[in-house]
Amino acid sequence: MSTTTHAIAAPGPGAPLEQTTIQRRDLRPDDVLIDIAYAGICHSDIHQARGEWGEAIFPMVPGHEIAGTVAAVGSAVTDYRVGDRVGVGCMVDSCGECEYCRADTEQFCVKGNVQTYNGVGFDGENTYGGYSKQVVVRDAFVCGIPDGIGLDVAAPLLCAGITTYSPLRQWGAGPGKKVAVVGLGGLGHMAVKLAAAMGAEVTVLSQSLKKQEDGKRLGATEYYATADETTFDVLRGRFDLILNTVSAQIPVDAYLGLLRVGGAMVNVGAPGEPLSYNAFSLIAGNKALAGSMIGGIAETQEMLNFCAEHGIGSDIETISAADVNTAYERVAASDVRYRFVIDTATIGA
Amino acid sequence: MSTTTHAIAAPGPGAPLEQTTIQRRDLRPDDVLIDIAYAGICHSDIHQARGEWGEAIFPMVPGHEIAGTVAAVGSAVTDYRVGDRVGVGCMVDSCGECEYCRADTEQFCVKGNVQTYNGVGFDGENTYGGYSKQVVVRDAFVCGIPDGIGLDVAAPLLCAGITTYSPLRQWGAGPGKKVAVVGLGGLGHMAVKLAAAMGAEVTVLSQSLKKQEDGKRLGATEYYATADETTFDVLRGRFDLILNTVSAQIPVDAYLGLLRVGGAMVNVGAPGEPLSYNAFSLIAGNKALAGSMIGGIAETQEMLNFCAEHGIGSDIETISAADVNTAYERVAASDVRYRFVIDTATIGA
Repeated sequence: MSTTTHAIAAPGPGAPLEQTTIQRRDLRPDDVLIDIAYAGICHSDIHQARGEWGEAIFPMVPGHEIAGTVAAVGSAVTDYRVGDRVGVGCMVDSCGECEYCRADTEQFCVKGNVQTYNGVGFDGENTYGGYSKQVVVRDAFVCGIPDGIGLDVAAPLLCAGITTYSPLRQWGAGPGKKVAVVGLGGLGHMAVKLAAAMGAEVTVLSQSLKKQEDGKRLGATEYYATADETTFDVLRGRFDLILNTVSAQIPVDAYLGLLRVGGAMVNVGAPGEPLSYNAFSLIAGNKALAGSMIGGIAETQEMLNFCAEHGIGSDIETISAADVNTAYERVAASDVRYRFVIDTATIGA
Repeated sequence: MSTTTHAIAAPGPGAPLEQTTIQRRDLRPDDVLIDIAYAGICHSDIHQARGEWGEAIFPMVPGHEIAGTVAAVGSAVTDYRVGDRVGVGCMVDSCGECEYCRADTEQFCVKGNVQTYNGVGFDGENTYGGYSKQVVVRDAFVCGIPDGIGLDVAAPLLCAGITTYSPLRQWGAGPGKKVAVVGLGGLGHMAVKLAAAMGAEVTVLSQSLKKQEDGKRLGATEYYATADETTFDVLRGRFDLILNTVSAQIPVDAYLGLLRVGGAMVNVGAPGEPLSYNAFSLIAGNKALAGSMIGGIAETQEMLNFCAEHGIGSDIETISAADVNTAYERVAASDVRYRFVIDTATIGA
């Protein structure tokens, strides 16, 4: 039993995406049927659609930055009603019983959370993501999108927003704190907006000064080029927190040198190759090198509420279904300011 | 103006230590003259005496684990009186004015703290350490050793104690927390005692099971050999905190795999060569890799008070001045349980 919906899928690893139809399951008592309005394109969609992250399930319907409205609810759903504005991020299920699920960190579910796409549900069925007109998701993995944020600029918050919000909160970004954001892409531009809204003093560290005006408009007070080696002298010992959003190799010790005593550099992007560091770079200053992976559902809701309060959405370029393959090329070439969002009304049209 | 005292010095890098005499300055108003009773031998003494840590000042009188009694005080000293039991650790001065000094973290003084030996004071004079019968130290860098800890077992607390106490406190060792201590040497054996006294459940991770009985006597509930690869499977995801006290290369990703979600591995020992890690090992579990360097003076006093309350001293082997070179060989070969302490009455005798 299921219903048919239009979608954009990669038929195989690296193959161009194409329009197709997929099945969505009939509503279970705790399910929400969502009419998707917009789906963001995350760089990780491209890695997975191209089979660059190891084994993957094809055909693949990418998309874990989903915003839309509730079209129907299962009999046991009490938190959502038809017409509610809602979002779905990187996960659509978890065991709900382990210590990490009980601590609202479903991303670390010991049974493994069910990814929004390129995953397998606890029912054994493959999951398909947001490049689609509809999706069915357990209510516990649906977030409300407050009035005041457009669904288009809200979609990327479900991954890029929470991925940067969570470490900024965990590592104390706020008034009196100096935060550096490494990389001004989809994640980085959200990090700048969020850290500035939290009250921190924000500096962008980007390869060049190309996007300097943007950085300042987004909320940064300073902007430095990392290709300029003097940057690492000028900013020595400056930051309480560095949020590294780039997935490329970086000279870790040089970046740790930019931290104040007790400071931390948190990575949300991971290069495929190992990184190298000198333990003394951490010891001489009680510093930390950390990682952060998205955020739990409760924290995602908190982030959406925070964004609504502060008038924050993603900077987006809206595209139609026909433009997805071109958009993938442009994301891979870092040619987007700062997130592509698919208008799902154009799928199957 | 100065007085002559007996000491043990390395005349040049790697040369055998020999007995000699050195000058100690006359008391300034804020100085304390200490009759040293015992001086611990820290592995870093050996690195420095052998010139293994780059440029060093010779002749060198090592020793930054100093315990003794006050012999005289300067006119402005109010905190100490003749006869008081006191200790001196790795630092003997700092600027006192920078943000880090004001925050009781003198080890990070922006002007650079003055090391107890192999350093240069703000007066331009070389500093000489604890392998000596007397030392003159600014009152602000002297700690009180509470009654109830012998001066012999207290001496190593001034470096090995605070180096392990500080990260255990900073990173939340306590009831309900599972702490692993990597390496059971001078630092490691203190870490086990302190973490157990803080109420944590302590596991030792050592190359072999050779010191297993000791580990359990010191307070560990479990003991695993890291040479046994199954250890890394059995203990996967187990610890809230790993305190790494070894200065050798370790497989960082394998150790990070032993941490729970949100856990941290803190290094207090640094190998000369860079270490390698995969950023994903940090991201997949919101983990941290950190460093910690000794502790401030106030925290050192707190540690000494904690040790007195819990009846904690170092496990020591007391030696005479004549045995110092043999002791250095044995420390380098990890053949000591767990700290050599020089009975300074034997110097110049």
